[in-house]
Amino acid sequence: MRRRVVGVMGAGDGAADVDCANAYQLGQRIAQRGWALLTGGRDAGVMRAANAGARQVPDSLTIGILPRASSAASPDVDVVIRTDLGNGRNNVNVLSSDVVVACGRGGPGTVSEVALAVKVGKPVLLLAPDDLTRQFFLDLSHGGVQIADTVEAAVDVLDRLLV
Amino acid sequence: MRRRVVGVMGAGDGAADVDCANAYQLGQRIAQRGWALLTGGRDAGVMRAANAGARQVPDSLTIGILPRASSAASPDVDVVIRTDLGNGRNNVNVLSSDVVVACGRGGPGTVSEVALAVKVGKPVLLLAPDDLTRQFFLDLSHGGVQIADTVEAAVDVLDRLLV
Amino acid sequence: MRRRVVGVMGAGDGAADVDCANAYQLGQRIAQRGWALLTGGRDAGVMRAANAGARQVPDSLTIGILPRASSAASPDVDVVIRTDLGNGRNNVNVLSSDVVVACGRGGPGTVSEVALAVKVGKPVLLLAPDDLTRQFFLDLSHGGVQIADTVEAAVDVLDRLLV
Amino acid sequence: MRRRVVGVMGAGDGAADVDCANAYQLGQRIAQRGWALLTGGRDAGVMRAANAGARQVPDSLTIGILPRASSAASPDVDVVIRTDLGNGRNNVNVLSSDVVVACGRGGPGTVSEVALAVKVGKPVLLLAPDDLTRQFFLDLSHGGVQIADTVEAAVDVLDRLLV
Repeated sequence: MRRRVVGVMGAGDGAADVDCANAYQLGQRIAQRGWALLTGGRDAGVMRAANAGARQVPDSLTIGILPRASSAASPDVDVVIRTDLGNGRNNVNVLSSDVVVACGRGGPGTVSEVALAVKVGKPVLLLAPDDLTRQFFLDLSHGGVQIADTVEAAVDVLDRLLV
Repeated sequence: MRRRVVGVMGAGDGAADVDCANAYQLGQRIAQRGWALLTGGRDAGVMRAANAGARQVPDSLTIGILPRASSAASPDVDVVIRTDLGNGRNNVNVLSSDVVVACGRGGPGTVSEVALAVKVGKPVLLLAPDDLTRQFFLDLSHGGVQIADTVEAAVDVLDRLLV
Repeated sequence: MRRRVVGVMGAGDGAADVDCANAYQLGQRIAQRGWALLTGGRDAGVMRAANAGARQVPDSLTIGILPRASSAASPDVDVVIRTDLGNGRNNVNVLSSDVVVACGRGGPGTVSEVALAVKVGKPVLLLAPDDLTRQFFLDLSHGGVQIADTVEAAVDVLDRLLV
Repeated sequence: MRRRVVGVMGAGDGAADVDCANAYQLGQRIAQRGWALLTGGRDAGVMRAANAGARQVPDSLTIGILPRASSAASPDVDVVIRTDLGNGRNNVNVLSSDVVVACGRGGPGTVSEVALAVKVGKPVLLLAPDDLTRQFFLDLSHGGVQIADTVEAAVDVLDRLLV
């Protein structure tokens, strides 16, 4: 049976420490559950941290969807997909994930991914968003996005969504 | 000399009347200035209204970037680009515009376009956004997005940006 | 009524002189018929020549579908679409044209465009192909591609296809 | 260390029996070597056969790059990437593979993939092509494409390219 895929999104360069720490733990927990981890694949910020976390777990599977033919991938990505779509690859991230998790608000790329997920009705989980982001996406999704304040709470939501 | 291109974004199905009314007027004013109008091209909501407004002006030029090979285009679109990218075409809308204007908050597709524009540093103008949207994008862009409450004010901003 | 769109494809850098000469004449003839000209938009080879030909005609309309956000466009392109899809933009070229004309065999990019056009059943015209290319695409399309040895013959085919 | 990725391309619906038989064996041999198998992911023709072959091997890894958000994947694909790019996904297939193998000439989609691979200088191997296809791509690539008449010969070429 095919593994479920959890997409973990967040800022690359300039990601906040707390978001990277959450991403690392979340990547680990995702891999422990036997789910595949999907990220934007770059060797920076939340992407790098989530993949590094998953890498600690034997038999983890990490998928990186890179923007450019020549983008450098995080060393902890097992399957590298080179789209050459630039930011257009954000839509591939969303469509290829069973759930999309955003670590913090992230930068504008992350915001575009959450919005695209809302548009196609993909389950979205905001992990430790600031108040403004929480309100904005609750409003945009008519209450459809899930919110978790901690990695543990996020894993609980994923358990419910993916079982 | 090549015409400047103003991208007008907003909700399709379910667009608010006020956003469509603004889009119609804005499309007209854009065409009167001799700028080309670019939209997502579909025959719905803000896209349809903006193109209908531009169509009132002799020598207007309207460009529609359609999501699917088979999408129906607004009848007032002069140049139809069929991307077959689905929502991935939102990035093409942004990159092909000299300025991106969002009519109201729009739906999640519009939000993704504003976010992608902020990401690549493309000038963005929010026309008559609600308070939450205004705050959210001012925060995301570190104050970089422009805001206008009326079509007249929007045209003033465009005049400054495009001259 | 929307203008018909003729896509003219061919090699960029390294295009043969005869293919560029044909593209120039063809661009001119397309514009004289009132059709829009669509190319890959770059300032090189067949793309540059076709746009330069169309530019000689008052009220011509030329559309350039650029691979990168930062690609330099031919100066004779009126409407520049920036896809940031790299070679993925070749599919947009095909889908946005009512007919696809290949000037000579072109390089591998042109071959991919002819193949994609055959795949979706878009009318394809090969202008002055070598024997091997002619045979190959006649075989691939089960005789579906049209062949013309001169620009005049190509315009005759376009007249039949687009009227 | 990341697995090498071999892309196996060929016709979907309407694929020749011999090409499917070759694809099955090749998928098996690729998996036995420890390489990942990448295909267009659909449950048809060469894609289905290659994945079914790889599935016979313990610890095989199969990646399927689907054209649409809603495309049905071959049941033997481990990692499903949903691009929603239509035929634009062919470029992703090429860029994400270390080597591209075409089983037979395939249909026009396969031809577009071989052409795109030639364009970006990706190693290409034609497995049991007809004479016309062989000549055409040798000419297009200035002799750069590799040819193999049997699966054994193809694996020998892959061994040289990927070690």
